[in-house]
Amino acid sequence: MAPRYAPSLRSRLPPLAIVLQVAFIVLFAFFVETEDFKEENEKEFINSYANFQDVHVMVFLGFGFMATFLVRYGFSSVGFSMLVAAMAVQWATLLNGFLLISSSSWKIRMKIQSLVDAELCASSALVAMGAVHGKTNPVQLLLMSLMAVTGFVVNQWLIHTLFKTLASFMSLHVFGALFGVMTSWVLYRRENTPKHQKEKFNSKSGLFAMFGTLFLWMFWPSFNSALVKYKIIAYGTYLALAVSTVTAMAVSALSSPKGKINMVHVQGSILAAGVATGAAVTTVPWMDMTIGFCAALLSTLGFRYLKDHMLHAFECHDTCGVLNVHAIPGMLGYFAYLLIRLVRVDDGTVAIRLAMHHISILLITVSMSLVSGIITGLLLKWSFWRPQQDRKCFDDQAFWEFPHLSVHK
Amino acid sequence: MAPRYAPSLRSRLPPLAIVLQVAFIVLFAFFVETEDFKEENEKEFINSYANFQDVHVMVFLGFGFMATFLVRYGFSSVGFSMLVAAMAVQWATLLNGFLLISSSSWKIRMKIQSLVDAELCASSALVAMGAVHGKTNPVQLLLMSLMAVTGFVVNQWLIHTLFKTLASFMSLHVFGALFGVMTSWVLYRRENTPKHQKEKFNSKSGLFAMFGTLFLWMFWPSFNSALVKYKIIAYGTYLALAVSTVTAMAVSALSSPKGKINMVHVQGSILAAGVATGAAVTTVPWMDMTIGFCAALLSTLGFRYLKDHMLHAFECHDTCGVLNVHAIPGMLGYFAYLLIRLVRVDDGTVAIRLAMHHISILLITVSMSLVSGIITGLLLKWSFWRPQQDRKCFDDQAFWEFPHLSVHK
Amino acid sequence: MAPRYAPSLRSRLPPLAIVLQVAFIVLFAFFVETEDFKEENEKEFINSYANFQDVHVMVFLGFGFMATFLVRYGFSSVGFSMLVAAMAVQWATLLNGFLLISSSSWKIRMKIQSLVDAELCASSALVAMGAVHGKTNPVQLLLMSLMAVTGFVVNQWLIHTLFKTLASFMSLHVFGALFGVMTSWVLYRRENTPKHQKEKFNSKSGLFAMFGTLFLWMFWPSFNSALVKYKIIAYGTYLALAVSTVTAMAVSALSSPKGKINMVHVQGSILAAGVATGAAVTTVPWMDMTIGFCAALLSTLGFRYLKDHMLHAFECHDTCGVLNVHAIPGMLGYFAYLLIRLVRVDDGTVAIRLAMHHISILLITVSMSLVSGIITGLLLKWSFWRPQQDRKCFDDQAFWEFPHLSVHK
Repeated sequence: MAPRYAPSLRSRLPPLAIVLQVAFIVLFAFFVETEDFKEENEKEFINSYANFQDVHVMVFLGFGFMATFLVRYGFSSVGFSMLVAAMAVQWATLLNGFLLISSSSWKIRMKIQSLVDAELCASSALVAMGAVHGKTNPVQLLLMSLMAVTGFVVNQWLIHTLFKTLASFMSLHVFGALFGVMTSWVLYRRENTPKHQKEKFNSKSGLFAMFGTLFLWMFWPSFNSALVKYKIIAYGTYLALAVSTVTAMAVSALSSPKGKINMVHVQGSILAAGVATGAAVTTVPWMDMTIGFCAALLSTLGFRYLKDHMLHAFECHDTCGVLNVHAIPGMLGYFAYLLIRLVRVDDGTVAIRLAMHHISILLITVSMSLVSGIITGLLLKWSFWRPQQDRKCFDDQAFWEFPHLSVHK
Repeated sequence: MAPRYAPSLRSRLPPLAIVLQVAFIVLFAFFVETEDFKEENEKEFINSYANFQDVHVMVFLGFGFMATFLVRYGFSSVGFSMLVAAMAVQWATLLNGFLLISSSSWKIRMKIQSLVDAELCASSALVAMGAVHGKTNPVQLLLMSLMAVTGFVVNQWLIHTLFKTLASFMSLHVFGALFGVMTSWVLYRRENTPKHQKEKFNSKSGLFAMFGTLFLWMFWPSFNSALVKYKIIAYGTYLALAVSTVTAMAVSALSSPKGKINMVHVQGSILAAGVATGAAVTTVPWMDMTIGFCAALLSTLGFRYLKDHMLHAFECHDTCGVLNVHAIPGMLGYFAYLLIRLVRVDDGTVAIRLAMHHISILLITVSMSLVSGIITGLLLKWSFWRPQQDRKCFDDQAFWEFPHLSVHK
Repeated sequence: MAPRYAPSLRSRLPPLAIVLQVAFIVLFAFFVETEDFKEENEKEFINSYANFQDVHVMVFLGFGFMATFLVRYGFSSVGFSMLVAAMAVQWATLLNGFLLISSSSWKIRMKIQSLVDAELCASSALVAMGAVHGKTNPVQLLLMSLMAVTGFVVNQWLIHTLFKTLASFMSLHVFGALFGVMTSWVLYRRENTPKHQKEKFNSKSGLFAMFGTLFLWMFWPSFNSALVKYKIIAYGTYLALAVSTVTAMAVSALSSPKGKINMVHVQGSILAAGVATGAAVTTVPWMDMTIGFCAALLSTLGFRYLKDHMLHAFECHDTCGVLNVHAIPGMLGYFAYLLIRLVRVDDGTVAIRLAMHHISILLITVSMSLVSGIITGLLLKWSFWRPQQDRKCFDDQAFWEFPHLSVHK
């Protein structure tokens, strides 16, 4: 099976991964130190550790297993997500430390929040990966994730430098999704047809995907409260997620000719409320619920109608539908955020300035994601990372050994 | 595949779900507000958030996946449990606020405990659902869960009004189980034979069910400590669960003609100790362990002998055996609770009054569950919710699309 | 299937399990009491409960599901791990209380740390079980786990008595792995060939194993911080686990003739960093990362080359490769720990004494594990626990009923 493909993976992935890994260890040796072992640091650590764990589970288990709905690509989804996330968190810890944390010394001091920030960067890269899942080899995924983390952190740094505001969840989701979709578009224009022959899913792989989805769904309130001061904000996310579950199932059944619920659509769309409320940051439950309702509606309809349209009209294939799950609900939530703030402003000039400010941030994020997505796509097209044989990508057998014990030889 | 069934689902589920969902959002807009964003609320929130998360995982992941042992109904178990739970927590938040929380204003103020309470109500509805799993369509499940939550909260309110005592886990388990069994009995008398043809399970679906069961099992100490002041009570539940695991496997092998352990029996019975100790609320480890031993013994024997007897003698089919997992251990635990308190009383009159008090609570709960279960069963029999085609219910294919990508059209 | 086997299981497992279980309950009734229900105990409980939960999930879910990669033995891996762990924690609570906790009264006072300690003992028994998975019946597993816990606690007591030092993770991993390998060696010399016919795995069972592995991997920082005062030590474990993920995948692809990654090797080797850093207890991130790199390298190469060599040269079959995952990385970490301490010492005599001290501890642990492993192997060979029919062990069908509903009879 795929014997001609294998050699190129062997000669590319191990050298690249080992060289990068050793380089990261050296960089950590020079630039990173932990907090002192003191009571007060310990206390802060324990208080934030549960929140960190929830995000940790989402990044490493949730995103990986969510993509297992592809029958022949289940194991690769999980395995490569883990590889990519493990690299991304190391790279994000370094980049965040260099660019975003102002410190008197040139050393990066690791705190529990550094790990949470690094995992959020990694989750942006995993969102991007959702668009190219099953069409790329692990070497490409590794490069892509490092590019995504770099682009995302540079975007955060740019916004912070220009507007003196902190990171928000809008940029995480919108950047990740558009970056991934652009990369997929550049990589696979005019060649996607033969690749999809093996993209099918069944009830068994659906259960694994449901596991991943549920872990994302259950811990999303923790995710959305990872960057804000008041964790009570989780109430709204929790209720919005409940609303979007009901809405996504209802809309999926309504828009199906046979009246059946589409498992894959629902698994994506029940998360849309989490994305939208993370960007909206309201403090009123019913507003979050309304935003969740709209997000699930848009997302489910996007899966039904937009995903195919994107493929046929723009030759852009988005495996996990990240455009519907992350980009559109992220923007929806951001506009809701802006609207809520505009309503409270009496003065017209102030309102216009406020709107300009937020729309500029959105435009910068969108531009950055498009540009870095296109660059990454072009880079990954380079045949060095992409031998002819990688047409068989939708298949675990191309990358993984499932051997019998050697006694049978 | 069930083409004649589908139209009725499409014309029933989406309108009902969307109307209910919009109504809930409107009710939340008028009646629910969150806590103020203050340091002290924040502190309480963080302290209780981990406990809430454990219950959250049990309700949304545990109960859903526990029922995946049915080979052809795995995906529906998880999907519909999620739909039902998402509705039930919203409805329970509102009902609890209206009936049980006395407040000076007419607004319901959402706290972290409100969410825990709502999830406990939802778990009672999910217990009830266990009895009809695989024999009902999602429209019926939705209605049934709202009825179960209503009945349960009214029961809590009745007990609170009459006896000035707070809710206990006995009522959660006994109400849920008897409600479900009665609904199943009313719905399926004289027609259950053809439905069971597809109720089979194998080792693969058993692993998914084991996942759900394990999450319930691991977090049950958190569940039982959700309503008590001293969380240290979790020690007893923890030990009792360990005892019941050993006991359930031993008794299952002993009562099998072939000496094999029945996977489904064990998955139910290892949880019986959690139910019983939750109702017993002892503070002494060996008592909890003894109660756990008895609960697992009764539950496993119930699965072996009672479940079939119920089916043949009373034409009552209980898919997940909730009678053995929840009702019987719940009552066992409650009698242990009463016994422990009676032993400490010297005065005969006081003892009789105490016994009367607790037995009244049990009788009210049993009556309420029977009455509301019968009403719900009759309601669900109404053909509007129940087209002729729903005989094929034991099948994921009737409700879910598992499509290939549209490029293949 | 296996009808001649079953009777012996029925006549052995239930009596043994029930007698042991009742004996444990009686011992708990006489010797164990919980903490008083006071505010301060409650506070300590809540602070440590999350840490306990992480270890709890690892022991009951992680170790069990990690071994599900065996296609025909998936359900038994999970089921028997749970049975064994449930017994082991009870026995460990008693033994730890009798041998290790000095108390003024003869009662064992249960604290949250008692449960964590008991779970760590159980995890040592589960590591040992990894070497004999799929080749033993549940009666043997039950006896083996009680022997492993006894041996481990006696070893801890010996080290504590002789050297006045507390338990470390080195002894947990090294003891468990060598104990298991010795038991497997004694039990199966000259008879392993026919047993392996059914030891195969596929992509589907691989996903279940990945679940278990991920839960171990994600919560290993909590595991390693379970015994130390400063939980901040988790930073290093977290980074080391990320490094070992990248390294294990790269080395597995590099050492494969086809350039593919071996799923089972990687699932073991990504955990090697956790074992090694747990034994090394450094406080500097880059040191942990370097140790993680070396541990994953050794572990993956061990899976590729050592495992078969052990089988052919020594007739020793190690199902889950615990030698590569636990024993070798554990020793590596312990030597790193010693080296870091030696570098800081100026005086030659002090250095030699320090080295002698630590090497003695290692030698005692190794000797204890070998001796108790051999004794256990000889005990389990006794035909009373081991009827002729247990050759079919690699099969869930031998132990578990997967019945249809009784209506079909």
